[in-house]
Amino acid sequence: MAVTNGVNGSTEYGKNVVDGIVKEAKLEAKSVAKLSTEHDHILKCFRLLIADLCQQFGGGHPGGAIGMAAIGISLWKYVMRYAPHSPDFFNRDRFVLSNGHTCLFQYTFHHLVGYKAMTFDQLKSYHSTRADMLCPGHPEIDHEGVEVTTGPLGQGISNAVGLAMATKHLAATYNKPGYDVVSNHTWCMIGDACLQEGVGLEAISLAGHLKLNNLTVMYDNNQITCDGSVDLTNSEDVNAKMRACGWDVIDIEDGCFDIEGIVAALKQAKKSTDKPTFINVRTIIGVGSAVAGNAVAHGAAFGKDDVANMKKIYGFNPEEHFVITDTVRDFFAECPSRGEKYVQEWDELVARYSEAHPELASEFKARVRGELPANWKDLIPAEFPNKLTPSRASSGLVFNPIAQRINSFLVGTADLSPSVHMIWEGKEDFQHPERKTACGINGSYAGRYIHYGVREHAMCAVANGLAAFAPNTIVPVTSSFFIFYLYAAPAVRMGALQQLQVIHAATHDSIGMGEDGPTHQPIELPALYRAMPNLLYIRPGDSEETAGAWAAAIDAKRTPSIISTSRHAIPQLAQTRRDAVARGAYVLEEVSDADVTLIGVGAELSFALDVAAALRAGPSRVRARVVSFPCQRLFERQPADYRRATLRRHAGVPAVVIEPYAAFGWERYADAAICMKSFGKSLPSKHAYEHFGFGTEAMTAKVEGYLRRLKEDEFLRSEFVEL
Amino acid sequence: MAVTNGVNGSTEYGKNVVDGIVKEAKLEAKSVAKLSTEHDHILKCFRLLIADLCQQFGGGHPGGAIGMAAIGISLWKYVMRYAPHSPDFFNRDRFVLSNGHTCLFQYTFHHLVGYKAMTFDQLKSYHSTRADMLCPGHPEIDHEGVEVTTGPLGQGISNAVGLAMATKHLAATYNKPGYDVVSNHTWCMIGDACLQEGVGLEAISLAGHLKLNNLTVMYDNNQITCDGSVDLTNSEDVNAKMRACGWDVIDIEDGCFDIEGIVAALKQAKKSTDKPTFINVRTIIGVGSAVAGNAVAHGAAFGKDDVANMKKIYGFNPEEHFVITDTVRDFFAECPSRGEKYVQEWDELVARYSEAHPELASEFKARVRGELPANWKDLIPAEFPNKLTPSRASSGLVFNPIAQRINSFLVGTADLSPSVHMIWEGKEDFQHPERKTACGINGSYAGRYIHYGVREHAMCAVANGLAAFAPNTIVPVTSSFFIFYLYAAPAVRMGALQQLQVIHAATHDSIGMGEDGPTHQPIELPALYRAMPNLLYIRPGDSEETAGAWAAAIDAKRTPSIISTSRHAIPQLAQTRRDAVARGAYVLEEVSDADVTLIGVGAELSFALDVAAALRAGPSRVRARVVSFPCQRLFERQPADYRRATLRRHAGVPAVVIEPYAAFGWERYADAAICMKSFGKSLPSKHAYEHFGFGTEAMTAKVEGYLRRLKEDEFLRSEFVEL
Repeated sequence: MAVTNGVNGSTEYGKNVVDGIVKEAKLEAKSVAKLSTEHDHILKCFRLLIADLCQQFGGGHPGGAIGMAAIGISLWKYVMRYAPHSPDFFNRDRFVLSNGHTCLFQYTFHHLVGYKAMTFDQLKSYHSTRADMLCPGHPEIDHEGVEVTTGPLGQGISNAVGLAMATKHLAATYNKPGYDVVSNHTWCMIGDACLQEGVGLEAISLAGHLKLNNLTVMYDNNQITCDGSVDLTNSEDVNAKMRACGWDVIDIEDGCFDIEGIVAALKQAKKSTDKPTFINVRTIIGVGSAVAGNAVAHGAAFGKDDVANMKKIYGFNPEEHFVITDTVRDFFAECPSRGEKYVQEWDELVARYSEAHPELASEFKARVRGELPANWKDLIPAEFPNKLTPSRASSGLVFNPIAQRINSFLVGTADLSPSVHMIWEGKEDFQHPERKTACGINGSYAGRYIHYGVREHAMCAVANGLAAFAPNTIVPVTSSFFIFYLYAAPAVRMGALQQLQVIHAATHDSIGMGEDGPTHQPIELPALYRAMPNLLYIRPGDSEETAGAWAAAIDAKRTPSIISTSRHAIPQLAQTRRDAVARGAYVLEEVSDADVTLIGVGAELSFALDVAAALRAGPSRVRARVVSFPCQRLFERQPADYRRATLRRHAGVPAVVIEPYAAFGWERYADAAICMKSFGKSLPSKHAYEHFGFGTEAMTAKVEGYLRRLKEDEFLRSEFVEL
Repeated sequence: MAVTNGVNGSTEYGKNVVDGIVKEAKLEAKSVAKLSTEHDHILKCFRLLIADLCQQFGGGHPGGAIGMAAIGISLWKYVMRYAPHSPDFFNRDRFVLSNGHTCLFQYTFHHLVGYKAMTFDQLKSYHSTRADMLCPGHPEIDHEGVEVTTGPLGQGISNAVGLAMATKHLAATYNKPGYDVVSNHTWCMIGDACLQEGVGLEAISLAGHLKLNNLTVMYDNNQITCDGSVDLTNSEDVNAKMRACGWDVIDIEDGCFDIEGIVAALKQAKKSTDKPTFINVRTIIGVGSAVAGNAVAHGAAFGKDDVANMKKIYGFNPEEHFVITDTVRDFFAECPSRGEKYVQEWDELVARYSEAHPELASEFKARVRGELPANWKDLIPAEFPNKLTPSRASSGLVFNPIAQRINSFLVGTADLSPSVHMIWEGKEDFQHPERKTACGINGSYAGRYIHYGVREHAMCAVANGLAAFAPNTIVPVTSSFFIFYLYAAPAVRMGALQQLQVIHAATHDSIGMGEDGPTHQPIELPALYRAMPNLLYIRPGDSEETAGAWAAAIDAKRTPSIISTSRHAIPQLAQTRRDAVARGAYVLEEVSDADVTLIGVGAELSFALDVAAALRAGPSRVRARVVSFPCQRLFERQPADYRRATLRRHAGVPAVVIEPYAAFGWERYADAAICMKSFGKSLPSKHAYEHFGFGTEAMTAKVEGYLRRLKEDEFLRSEFVEL
């Protein structure tokens, strides 16, 4: 028995807990000794199976999966509450494999415990060329039993924090005495990297602050990374660091074999006081192989001879491959029926809850189904004050009433509450209920306003976890300056990849944000988000378009959105239409016999109207039509006829886009751009615009000059021109 | 006296140190009491000046600068070695304001200590509309006394780690007994955010591991963030966390007034054992104002009445603004001459060093000038093996000989040594000389191979610090999978913005990287880097082009580069030319009367040649010319004639680009794209290509189909088509 209590170093405490659990697990009939023999056989069989699965195609990541075998048995057999035949059971424990490259660990247990899709054939397809295989190189959310797609390190642990927050929030909102309809635990497996990646460290700090005692992180502490031993790069006292971050710590000395100790620790973690728990499990990567404890065990098959030798040592036949003995099958045989019992118990609980608390239960069940109240669009004001308004404030006008009334929205900010306008009247903070802050702003887990801290990356990764808890049950909203969504980009990407509805309220876009200067002025960032698959990057041009932007984002049930707004006040335009935002672009001002189309975007939409007016009034009498273009991806989805009618480039009308970003990507819709060719500059908004040639007069002259050059140079039309 | 030693809590030790320092500073003639009176006056005067500077335009960040006044006096008057009249003095201490929004703190001290450019007029231009002002919203590297541009939180502290590593490395490489030609210290000021941002936490962990005892971080612990008190989001034990990360910790209880205590702590930090030092300085944001200790003191001027009231309480005339008294002027008057003395002493030291160690000194002086040996290009092999080679391996063939021979290059990896091919024969690791790792790979500070750990973001931010130490003295090279440069993007951007030469060796690009799947397959990331100002994103098509890519990157003295290579083996092409890479794109195969131009890129360059051959051989006998296009930004710099001759779109030849990325941005150079329209899929390289339509047959059919459609639809030419 090798559990030591992380706080006081005593092994006795751990032992007592284990004794308790062994009883709890109703294993009295078997002696612990017999159990150990059985465990020993299952460990061997599992490890050989992993070695075979990698060996067949000569690739994959065997070492970690083999090292963590005892942890997996502890989880799937003894501790986790889940239902292999009802993988989406709402109150299931969530398991996150944050060290996603060890996916074979999860796939193999999924097969053994009876997830139906993970057939033996499917399991053996790991690293194959089957296009329909369920064993990709990292776990993917679409597959049974996989809660979140992992792989990019540090994301999974942050998602796990979000999953645990989702439980806390739903429990605080819907549970009633005797009716714990939401009570699941979140288990997260990590390797060294999740303790090195910044996003993981941010999430760890946040989880400690929020006292998420329903979260347990298991550290596969094998002291090996790709480059060699961990102490090439990291020599910190990880347990002390976790305690400093507000976590309970439990040590497991023999993580390769001590299943009883691990089970004890996991159960202790579930019972822990008011902290999340970090279990530091010492393992040996590739244990039992010739490369045990070596970095090469991480990402390469062991080789035929080594695998054969392992089998010999373990008393298995070296000629047999992919062996799953009856003992192993029997050991896990109970998992599906046990799971269905959990499902049935929960269904019954919810039925009783529905009788006792019919109204709350009705809302709860709508949330479980991922439904919003039918009238949500009516909460958006029909009209807005006709005055200069920063579009970040428009975002507040549009969305605050929705956030206030509809419980689905969990809104947060990376320490920019005063700037992002996401606070609604009467909002309550999401905090541990006993937290008393120095500034006197407190809250509870039922609160729906989340102070994420200056942790943009974790904010978005945690939001993915909130969204992944169940489809559209929670719709997370994050907020920060747009430029800081570059910090968060890997998490935003993971949201797009996983088709999670997360809405990012990004303010202070374009050089119009002013004095903060080039470090804060996004120039190239829109290119990333406009190019990103399954993401809507929307720049509304006034309050009316901001209404359309939020409606489009809330309608996008399987797509994250960025609503990109201005710091500075912009005019309200008579011609804008909220419904048209969903089409991506639309004609704002049409003229017959147009000489040019001006494309206006977001905070600078009014510039296009101003330039059109100046062109018309000028000596050259240029006739300009104006198109508002808030979202490229939404426009791409429109039929070709609509796109042609909007842009009219096919009819020979040249298009000039006006946007103080890199022009990159506008080449698809325009022939020329008034754009940024460098980073920005620290100047007040108006002066920044003028400094970079976005004054009306300068822009008008640029368009006139371009139209002249088009006449002079017959080849110019085949090229994109930055004006 | 309020210094407490962080480790044992004793205040006595602090007191003794202070006594020592007071003597050291040759202040014996004045009593400590008199000094305190003088300090008191200077603190008041400085704080009122900050309040006035913000009040004049009703904006800015006064609170932090006012809170940190005593820290600034301690640094610029008593501790830092710098030369205001020789701001680029090589051996100066480096100061980094990582909480860059408090820039007025630095600007004001720069004025007071005599940086020539920072005139009183310039200082008063803070938040003005002057286009030539030296007081932007965040410190910018171009300005005297500013070591790195800061603002995006967590970057500065990571840069500081790089600056301290640069000192360690240059000292270990060039210092000789009695000749410490590099001996400077790095001082870094941070706020709460740098302890929350992941990149800061990564850098802190790395600095502790590397035992950078020449780095001191001063934490402006005012317990206030934008949203309110820090405990809204963070309740960790920061001192314990820093100690767990391998730092010494010193507490300062009264950071607003206790200059003697702060000076003592700073001097103690400089003397510390084998650890970096973290000084936890308790301050009050906006101390002395009506909003002292309140979040609103952070980012808004105090208002006329509050400023007037502060003046009254401090015994100043409320009607007078921007007052700098003679006492203040006198106090700092010695700084320029003291600085020149440092410069002179160092010049003399280097002169003696040159006599004692002429060869080493000659190399050292070339490094100081930022020069490479003239023959560096000769180190690149003239030819490469004509066999299938992953271009990541080509990168090694090209660059390893350069890294081996030329000391300027400090090469590192985010724990992907086995994958990125950056290790040269005989490389030594950059490590603390006494570090003994479990895997037996040790090193010294003279080593030039850096294990950054799984910390991509800090890797690139630290690399910026290495590069910022002095122009081109160190040329940092980072390496990881290309997708993980999304994690590092904010730092890569800061390098581009600051014109720092850092070379990023990014491997595993495109879906060709295979089994790791969609989380690891970059699709949209190239759009970010192709749109980023002052960055070269280069995708070489074989070993020959990889030679050209490295040459272009090494030639780009004020521009960072990403050299983007393949995981999988690709063919060597007879037509490629290394010199042509510098032009961005060039004709690989010309044909007369071409029907189409095929643009090939990077790892898939051979696809364009294959398709051209298939088109020619097919029933439609399509005549295709082929252009290799490794770098859009380099191509943009070419004259219009060259660009037209290369692409020939002006002559009516349609262009089709082949690249398994989002097509975004290629619209400038092509009419259609065989590209990715979604995220990727976990399949072996060849199968991933085929799955997404990048088999030769499929691509050939797509091009033929497109050319047919062009004839049928007269409008198609005005649109970009994804095939």
